Amino acid sequence: MTELLNNETVVDYIAQHPEFAKHIDVATAKAKEIGDGNLNLVFLVKDADGRGLVVKQTLPYVRSDHSWKVTEDSIFAEARGLEAADKYTNGLSPKFYGLDRDRRLVVIEDLSDWAQWREALDEGSVNPGAARDVGRFVARLAYGTSYFSREPQDVQKAAAESINPELEQITEDLIFEEPYYEHEHNGWEPGATDLVLALRDEELRTQVAKLKYEFLTNGEALLHGDLHSSSLFVRSEKNPVADDDTESPRIKAYDFEFGFYGPVAFDLGILWGNFLLAQARELALLADGPETIGVREGKDFARFDWLISLYEEAWDGFETEFRRLVGEHKADKIFTDAFVDGWIARTLRFAAGYAGAEGIRRTIGWAHLPDLETLGPDRKVWASRVVLTASRALLERFEEVGSAADVRRIVEESIPTSQRSQA
Amino acid sequence: MTELLNNETVVDYIAQHPEFAKHIDVATAKAKEIGDGNLNLVFLVKDADGRGLVVKQTLPYVRSDHSWKVTEDSIFAEARGLEAADKYTNGLSPKFYGLDRDRRLVVIEDLSDWAQWREALDEGSVNPGAARDVGRFVARLAYGTSYFSREPQDVQKAAAESINPELEQITEDLIFEEPYYEHEHNGWEPGATDLVLALRDEELRTQVAKLKYEFLTNGEALLHGDLHSSSLFVRSEKNPVADDDTESPRIKAYDFEFGFYGPVAFDLGILWGNFLLAQARELALLADGPETIGVREGKDFARFDWLISLYEEAWDGFETEFRRLVGEHKADKIFTDAFVDGWIARTLRFAAGYAGAEGIRRTIGWAHLPDLETLGPDRKVWASRVVLTASRALLERFEEVGSAADVRRIVEESIPTSQRSQA
Repeated sequence: MTELLNNETVVDYIAQHPEFAKHIDVATAKAKEIGDGNLNLVFLVKDADGRGLVVKQTLPYVRSDHSWKVTEDSIFAEARGLEAADKYTNGLSPKFYGLDRDRRLVVIEDLSDWAQWREALDEGSVNPGAARDVGRFVARLAYGTSYFSREPQDVQKAAAESINPELEQITEDLIFEEPYYEHEHNGWEPGATDLVLALRDEELRTQVAKLKYEFLTNGEALLHGDLHSSSLFVRSEKNPVADDDTESPRIKAYDFEFGFYGPVAFDLGILWGNFLLAQARELALLADGPETIGVREGKDFARFDWLISLYEEAWDGFETEFRRLVGEHKADKIFTDAFVDGWIARTLRFAAGYAGAEGIRRTIGWAHLPDLETLGPDRKVWASRVVLTASRALLERFEEVGSAADVRRIVEESIPTSQRSQA
Repeated sequence: MTELLNNETVVDYIAQHPEFAKHIDVATAKAKEIGDGNLNLVFLVKDADGRGLVVKQTLPYVRSDHSWKVTEDSIFAEARGLEAADKYTNGLSPKFYGLDRDRRLVVIEDLSDWAQWREALDEGSVNPGAARDVGRFVARLAYGTSYFSREPQDVQKAAAESINPELEQITEDLIFEEPYYEHEHNGWEPGATDLVLALRDEELRTQVAKLKYEFLTNGEALLHGDLHSSSLFVRSEKNPVADDDTESPRIKAYDFEFGFYGPVAFDLGILWGNFLLAQARELALLADGPETIGVREGKDFARFDWLISLYEEAWDGFETEFRRLVGEHKADKIFTDAFVDGWIARTLRFAAGYAGAEGIRRTIGWAHLPDLETLGPDRKVWASRVVLTASRALLERFEEVGSAADVRRIVEESIPTSQRSQA
């Protein structure tokens, strides 16, 4: 078992490693464990001048239950993702300072001036340009690690080195299996039971199976693998940028331990599913009762309108950047323009499906999120029903999706008042 | 560099390895090098009682050009494929006796009573049930090595261990690239030039790109990887079976060095492409001139009718066996019947496309085959034109294919007289 660091020994550790120590003044450095996840320790180490770095070390057990042993090798996936993102995404991830294989830790840039996007969203933030930059992040990582930019032998070796079976299994079970069966991990508000039981349906399972099989078999690019809004930083009041600044990064993606070679659509879909959660939360907060979900009279829907625009903003960021990169250089000349068009269209369709799978599992599966959990019980039911209805529609219809605007429309049609006004 | 065996030292080698020696009487054993490939030595070792085994050792260079160095690691792919086929295909491959990693060799069952299928076909054979058994072989190998029967973590580890970048590159270049561009490897009869130049077309390249990308990214099962009729044995007069014997194997698949985790459709499509070559050869032999290709008057088309039935026979063998296996046990319950139906339909479509790619590259690419090469120059042109026309149609239309009968129809419509009779 790896020797775990603490707030004292982590400073000594940095001091003993010049390649890390050069980033701070170790003589005045102090450390604080700031991790909130179950699988890692995260130390923020800062010196008297405010310069800092972050040390992330894998736990050999689940933090909340030391008898539950887990792989320490997820740190290798973390390091691979950090290194690739640092290399390819042009500032949309923390700087990667290095991996210590024996100590199962990585050292990265201090981003403590940034805000976790989910926390910001749950407090009511509006973050112009953030979704676009996440789309760009996905495009750059996908392009940089795939056959679109690299020689086949390189990709095949990288994919083989990047397998991550234990963490992939978590995704396979929690996203693509348990919510569609009776399972002890599932949980939901009684007011959503009718929608939950209706998910245990062969036709819906068939749709989920298509998404799962794609996840299992389509090893096209190195994924982040868990690209939800708690894996993303956005700017805070500590590091603002001007609205017209189109150059400075507006997001940083982190927590790469779920990375592996999989379908690019998965990263986009997980992101979209979390947009749906934020939208449902906003709708629930705006409503006075289940009958007024989505009723605009007397309410300020400006923030909701921003939230519902994020599917298109993220997609546009992805597609524009991916086309720009492929336009500059394609590793294989037989990847014609029409082939690239078809690949993008297929990626869009599967992303819509993954969004639905993420919405469902975050509402009724094992890993709920503050977006809905911090609502009162009534509003949680209202929001859950919106997410489940929209997610189911995305699962049923993802193969028909032809644009990010279609995703938005499918979600809008799932809001009760939208359905009434259409009836 | 590995120490290479010869007809004398191979017997000593067997004698020193009891796990191999037990299959023969080494005291009376004699060896003969029978390999005809460029990348391996193949020794048939037989004792005085007629018991034998085969030793296949990788060459570190191309046999015809010792200055051309090639990977010796293809023997590991060979061993993986032999072992998996021996385990899963129920007698449709040679028994696998073992791998010697240091000597880069495998030892397998002696199948010298069997006939290479291509040689048999080129001599005019009819082999009832052989195509069905090849379909079963593909079904069993695909099922046994994929997510349909195995736990995800096992498949992911097996796929990572099975990468075969150098040999995959050969396929990528020779099948999915060179024939669609001007390339020094290409060669054809002048009488086919119009059809060859017409292949250098963006729309056709787009179709090939779809097939190539699927080959590169869809790591769903361990493939044979080169399943043409020179990688298949059929029964000969030395080991016949009764026509009504539906149990005894009618084929043995061998030469697994191109194996890797890829799309199941690829194995089926390569097989189909070689059926097309055999059909074109038969048509050319039956015709008196280019105007009478496919004209039945006064000719015996019985063997052609058998050859053109092989798409459906092989597919039926595959689909029936795959459905039987999945019906007995699925590793993942969310793989619903409708999902399996969809997977089979998609596999069929891509197989049709791969058949077209194989037909083209075997006619104008770097690796021609005796099927056409042993025809006289005129008949070679006639046959080439049939293959190129049908292959192009398969590439253009593979996404519309809904049955193996559709594949047959697309090929039939590409025979000049069929086109005339339809006009």
